[in-house]
Amino acid sequence: MLLEKPEVEVTFLPGGERVVVEAGITISEAAERAAVPLSLPCGGKGICGNCRVVIQEGQVGEFTAAELRALTAAERGQGVRLACQCRLEGTALVQVPPTSRVVGQKGLGQLRIRPVALDANVRRYRPELAPPSLQDQQSDFQRLAEALAEHCPGLTAFPDALRALPAALRADRYRVGVTTVGCRMADVHPEYATPPCLGLAVDIGTSTVVVYVVDLETGQPLGTAAEHNPQVRHGADVISRIEYANTHSGGLLTLREEVTHVINAITKAALEPIGADPHWIYEAVVVGNTCMHHLFLGLDPRHLAEAPYVPVTTAPVDARPPEVGLDINPRGNVHCLPCIAGFVGADTVAVIVAEEMTRQSEPVLAVDIGTNGEVALWSGEKLLVASCAAGPAFEGSQIERGMRAAPGAIDHVDLDTDDLRFTTIGGAQPVGLCGSGLFDIMAVALEAGAVAPSGRMADESRTDGLLPGIRRRLVGSGNERRLILTEGRNGSAGVYLSQRDVREIQLAKGAVRATIEMLLEYAGLSVGDLREVLLAGAFGNYIRPASALRIGLLPPMPLEKIRGVGNAAGSGAILALVSQDEREYAAQVAQEAEHLELFRAREFQSRFAETMTF
Amino acid sequence: MLLEKPEVEVTFLPGGERVVVEAGITISEAAERAAVPLSLPCGGKGICGNCRVVIQEGQVGEFTAAELRALTAAERGQGVRLACQCRLEGTALVQVPPTSRVVGQKGLGQLRIRPVALDANVRRYRPELAPPSLQDQQSDFQRLAEALAEHCPGLTAFPDALRALPAALRADRYRVGVTTVGCRMADVHPEYATPPCLGLAVDIGTSTVVVYVVDLETGQPLGTAAEHNPQVRHGADVISRIEYANTHSGGLLTLREEVTHVINAITKAALEPIGADPHWIYEAVVVGNTCMHHLFLGLDPRHLAEAPYVPVTTAPVDARPPEVGLDINPRGNVHCLPCIAGFVGADTVAVIVAEEMTRQSEPVLAVDIGTNGEVALWSGEKLLVASCAAGPAFEGSQIERGMRAAPGAIDHVDLDTDDLRFTTIGGAQPVGLCGSGLFDIMAVALEAGAVAPSGRMADESRTDGLLPGIRRRLVGSGNERRLILTEGRNGSAGVYLSQRDVREIQLAKGAVRATIEMLLEYAGLSVGDLREVLLAGAFGNYIRPASALRIGLLPPMPLEKIRGVGNAAGSGAILALVSQDEREYAAQVAQEAEHLELFRAREFQSRFAETMTF
Repeated sequence: MLLEKPEVEVTFLPGGERVVVEAGITISEAAERAAVPLSLPCGGKGICGNCRVVIQEGQVGEFTAAELRALTAAERGQGVRLACQCRLEGTALVQVPPTSRVVGQKGLGQLRIRPVALDANVRRYRPELAPPSLQDQQSDFQRLAEALAEHCPGLTAFPDALRALPAALRADRYRVGVTTVGCRMADVHPEYATPPCLGLAVDIGTSTVVVYVVDLETGQPLGTAAEHNPQVRHGADVISRIEYANTHSGGLLTLREEVTHVINAITKAALEPIGADPHWIYEAVVVGNTCMHHLFLGLDPRHLAEAPYVPVTTAPVDARPPEVGLDINPRGNVHCLPCIAGFVGADTVAVIVAEEMTRQSEPVLAVDIGTNGEVALWSGEKLLVASCAAGPAFEGSQIERGMRAAPGAIDHVDLDTDDLRFTTIGGAQPVGLCGSGLFDIMAVALEAGAVAPSGRMADESRTDGLLPGIRRRLVGSGNERRLILTEGRNGSAGVYLSQRDVREIQLAKGAVRATIEMLLEYAGLSVGDLREVLLAGAFGNYIRPASALRIGLLPPMPLEKIRGVGNAAGSGAILALVSQDEREYAAQVAQEAEHLELFRAREFQSRFAETMTF
Repeated sequence: MLLEKPEVEVTFLPGGERVVVEAGITISEAAERAAVPLSLPCGGKGICGNCRVVIQEGQVGEFTAAELRALTAAERGQGVRLACQCRLEGTALVQVPPTSRVVGQKGLGQLRIRPVALDANVRRYRPELAPPSLQDQQSDFQRLAEALAEHCPGLTAFPDALRALPAALRADRYRVGVTTVGCRMADVHPEYATPPCLGLAVDIGTSTVVVYVVDLETGQPLGTAAEHNPQVRHGADVISRIEYANTHSGGLLTLREEVTHVINAITKAALEPIGADPHWIYEAVVVGNTCMHHLFLGLDPRHLAEAPYVPVTTAPVDARPPEVGLDINPRGNVHCLPCIAGFVGADTVAVIVAEEMTRQSEPVLAVDIGTNGEVALWSGEKLLVASCAAGPAFEGSQIERGMRAAPGAIDHVDLDTDDLRFTTIGGAQPVGLCGSGLFDIMAVALEAGAVAPSGRMADESRTDGLLPGIRRRLVGSGNERRLILTEGRNGSAGVYLSQRDVREIQLAKGAVRATIEMLLEYAGLSVGDLREVLLAGAFGNYIRPASALRIGLLPPMPLEKIRGVGNAAGSGAILALVSQDEREYAAQVAQEAEHLELFRAREFQSRFAETMTF
C-alpha cells in the first residue's frame, strides 16, 4: 500500500499566487505550478544563487550543502533560501524578490527553434577527482583529463585555465566545474563557484542587430536584445557602406567598431535581467549577410561591389573573441556561419538550417525580404540561391513615412465596407509605416483601386468608382499624389502612402518576383510544385501572406502554402550554437548551394520589366 | 661531345678570397667555394635581400625578376646585386658588405642535431592562383584553400590573415607567400615581400637560458644566444625559486616575467646578426625542467615542493605567444614539450628525443647533470627515469670559487709529473672554476692523494707522499683547508678547491651515483649491460669522462662507453620544432616513461651513504 504524501498550500508574494502541492517538493517546483516565473539560470542546481526567496511563514526542510555555500550566515538568519533547494514541509508563505523573477524578454516569444539534441561545442563538466598521493603522483591536469577522457578525448588547456587549476582543485575537495571550448579547457572553478555556461547568437542585419543569450547546459534561450545597426548613419544599404569603407580613411575600422560596439552593448542589456556576466559567454555564433559578415570581421568588402563580385571568404570562420572585438570570455570562440556568395550570406544559410530546407522531400522556396532580397530554392534534389537588390523600401527606408517596427508604427491595414482601418504597434498614436503595414496599405490600395496595376495612383480629380472613405483620402496630383492614413497634427506630416513610395515598392517587389521566377525556371519547376514558401527576414513573420500575394511579391499560389518564419536567421544561429551537427549542416548547406548570378544576367532585365506591374 | 664552360676568376673584397669557377654559377655559389660566409636566411631564393653584394668590376648576368623586386633603382645603378641571383659571366671583383656576412655564432658549432625529414608544424607555401572572373566567383580564401588543399586540407585562417588576403592577392598577380601554423593561415604576403619563416627553440635552464633560431623552410639553425637565468637572484636552485613564489606577493608573476623577458631579449640578440624580425618567428618549442616549465607558463609550482609532489601539468602545452608573453608572431604557436614528473622535466624528454634513446636495441643510460640530477635508463624495453637533488655544486654555485663557463674560468686541470696544470676559457687570467674544471681538479686531487676517499683533504702539516708541486698548494687546516690553483693578486681571493667544496661535490655526486645504481637494480641490469652512457646538461659536453669516472659520479666502466652529448635538450627542442613526428615522439616518451620516486625512498638514504665516498 502506498502512503500518500500530505498536501500543503504555498502562497507566493508579492503576487499572491497560491498552489496546493504534495509535501517534499522544492519551492521552485511549486513556483512552476503556480506560474511564478523564477529565475533559474543554473537549471536549478543550487549553483548560481539566483533563485533566492524569503520564507515569511511555514515549515521547510534543512539547509542543503549548496545553500550553505551560496548563502551567507546573515542571509540564512533572515530566512533566505534557494528556491531550487528548499523543500516544502508544510503550508508556507514565500516572498519572491524582483531579482529572483524572470523578467519578460521581448522577442523570445517569437523565436521558434526546432528541437535538436544538445551537443554544443562548449561543454560544462562537474567531475569529482580522487586527490593525489605518493602512490598517485599524476599531475593536476592529467588527473582531470583522465576523468573527462570519455567525453573529451585529447583534452588540452589554455594557460590561464592551467594557472587556475591547482587552487580550484584544492578549494573544495577536488570537485570542480570545468568549461571546455572544443575540448580545450577554457575555465575551471571550484564546483560551488562555477558560473552558468552561456552562449550568444548574433544576427547582424543591415538595419537591426539582434542577440540571443542561450544557456549551453540546457540549450534554452534566456534572453534577447536588439538595436539599430549604427552603420545606418553611413547609408541604409550595403552598397553605401562599402562605398564608405572605400572612400573614408579608416572607414572599414569605423564600420567594424560600430557593429562590435552595438553587439557588446546589447549583449550586456540581454544579460542584465538574468544577472549574468559577459565572461560567462563562451561562444558566439554570428550570422549576417556577406557584407555585414565582412564588416564584422574587418574584411575589406570592396570586391563585393565590383565585378567579379568576389568575397574575401565564404568559409566558416572561428576566432578568439578579442580578435574580433567581442567582450565575451576571451578564451571562448566566435563562430561565423559560412556565406554562399557576395550577396547571399550566412543569414540565408541560417534560414535554410532553421527550416531544414534541404532535408525536405518536396520543393520549398524561402524568401528573405530585406534591403537585399535573397531567394533560396530547394528543388528536392539541389539547392539554388540568388540575390537581388530590392532596395531598402521593405525595411522602411526610402519610404516617405517609413519606420521600423516600433510603438506607433502602423503594422496592419484592412479594407472595411467603405474605408480602411489600421492598427499600430502598442496601440500608440500612429507615426509611420513599418514593413508589414506598408505591404498591407499597398495591397489595400490595389484592392480598392486607389493604385492601378501599372502603379499609377488615382488622381484626386478622378476618383470614380472608389469607396467614399478611400476617395476622401486621396490628395495631391502628379508626383505629389498621396493616400492619407492619418492627418498630421500640429504641423507634423501625418502618415500616408505616396506615389513615389509605390514606385519604390514596385522596384523592390519586381526584383524579388523576377528572381523567384527565374530560379523556378532554372530548376525546371512551376509554382504548383512548391510545397511551401517561407517568408523570412526582419519582418517576414509579420507580413500577411495575403498582402504579399496581392502586391505580387510572390507568384499566385494558395494562401496556405505561405508561412512566415520570423527571425529564422536567429533560430539557425541558435541551432548552430547548441548543436555541432547543425553547425556541420550549415557548412554543408553553404558548400552545396549553387549560386546563380541572375541579377546581372540580361534576361533578368526583361523579366524585371514584366514583374514590376502589380 | 660536351662543351666545357669557360672558367672565370672571382675575388671577394674586403678579404681578398679568390676562387676559379665555371662561368654561369651564382656569386653565392662562388662565395661558398671561396669559404666567404654569405648570409642567406631565405635559402638563396632571392626573397630576403640579405645577400646584397657590389660588383666592383667584371661581367655578370642580367638582373633577375627577384632582384628587380628586391633592389631599388638607385641600388641597381650602384652595381648592387643579390649574390644568390647574380650569375658570373667573366672574371669579377665582388665587394661583400659586413651586413651580408654571416657573423660567427657562438654555440651553434657545439650543436649536433640528427638528420630528420623536415615536417614542421609551421609551413610556408608560395602558390600562384588563377584570378577570379564572372565564371569563377570563388572567394579569395576558397581560391587559396583549394590551391593548398593537398598539403593543408581543411585550411582555416586567423582574422588578421583574412584581413590581409585581398590586398596581398592583388598586389602581384595572385602570387602570394602563405604561412600556416598547424593548417591555420597566420600570414599572407605578396610573394616578393614574403619574409623568412623562422622558428625558435628555447632551453630554460635553472642557471642559463639558451635560444636557437631555426629556418623552418630548410630546418637549418641560423643563430643562437644565451644568457643567465635572471631568476638566479631569488636563489640558485629550484626549491628556493618555489619558496620565493610562495612567500612573495606577486612572486610567481615576477619569476615568470623575468624568464620571458630574458627569452625575448636573447631572441632579439640572436636575430640581429641575420637582420631578422621577431615577427618572422612563427613557432617556439620550449624545454626546461618541470619547475622552469611551470614558472615560464605561470603555473603555481608550490605543489612540486611538498608531498605528494604533484605538477600542475606534465602534458604538452600549446599556447598563443601573447598568452605566455613571448614577443614573436602573435598568430604563431608556443609548444612546451611534455614533462614526466615534478623533477623530471621537458629537458630530459628532449635529451631522450635528441638521442633516440628508446629506439635503441640495447640499454642506454643518460645523466643530466645540473642543480637537479636527472637520470634516464632505457632498458631496451622500458624507460625508467628518476631525479635527485644534486645541489648546485655542479653548476658552480655553493663552490667557493665556482663560476659559469665564461672567459677566465678554469675548464681543464691535469696532473703533470710533479704538479698540476690547467687551462682557462679564452686563455684569460684565471678567475674561478667552471663545472668541467671542478670535475678535473677533484679527480686530480684524488689521484694525487690530496683528498682521501673519505673526502678529507690532506692537512698542510701532513703531506707525506704527495708530489712536491701538490704539497706546496695545500694550505690551511681543519675546515679551512684549501688546494690552491692560483694565488690571489691585489687582495683578490685566487682560485682554489676548499674542504667545504669537496663536501658539496661528495653530496652531489653521491646522489647521482645512488640514483644510477638504484635505477639499474630496478631494471635488473648491471653496469656491463649498458651500451652507452650519455652525459647531458649545460656542461655535459665539457666534462671529461675520465674525471666523471675518477670521482665516482658514474660506476666503473670502460671510458669509451661515456659520451658527452652537449646541449642535447636544445637539440631535442630543435627536432620537435622542425618535425611533427619528433614532437609526437616526445609526447610518447613522456607518456611511456616510468618515474621512480627514489629520492624519498628509505633505501635511497643507505645507498647514498655508500656512494658519497670517492
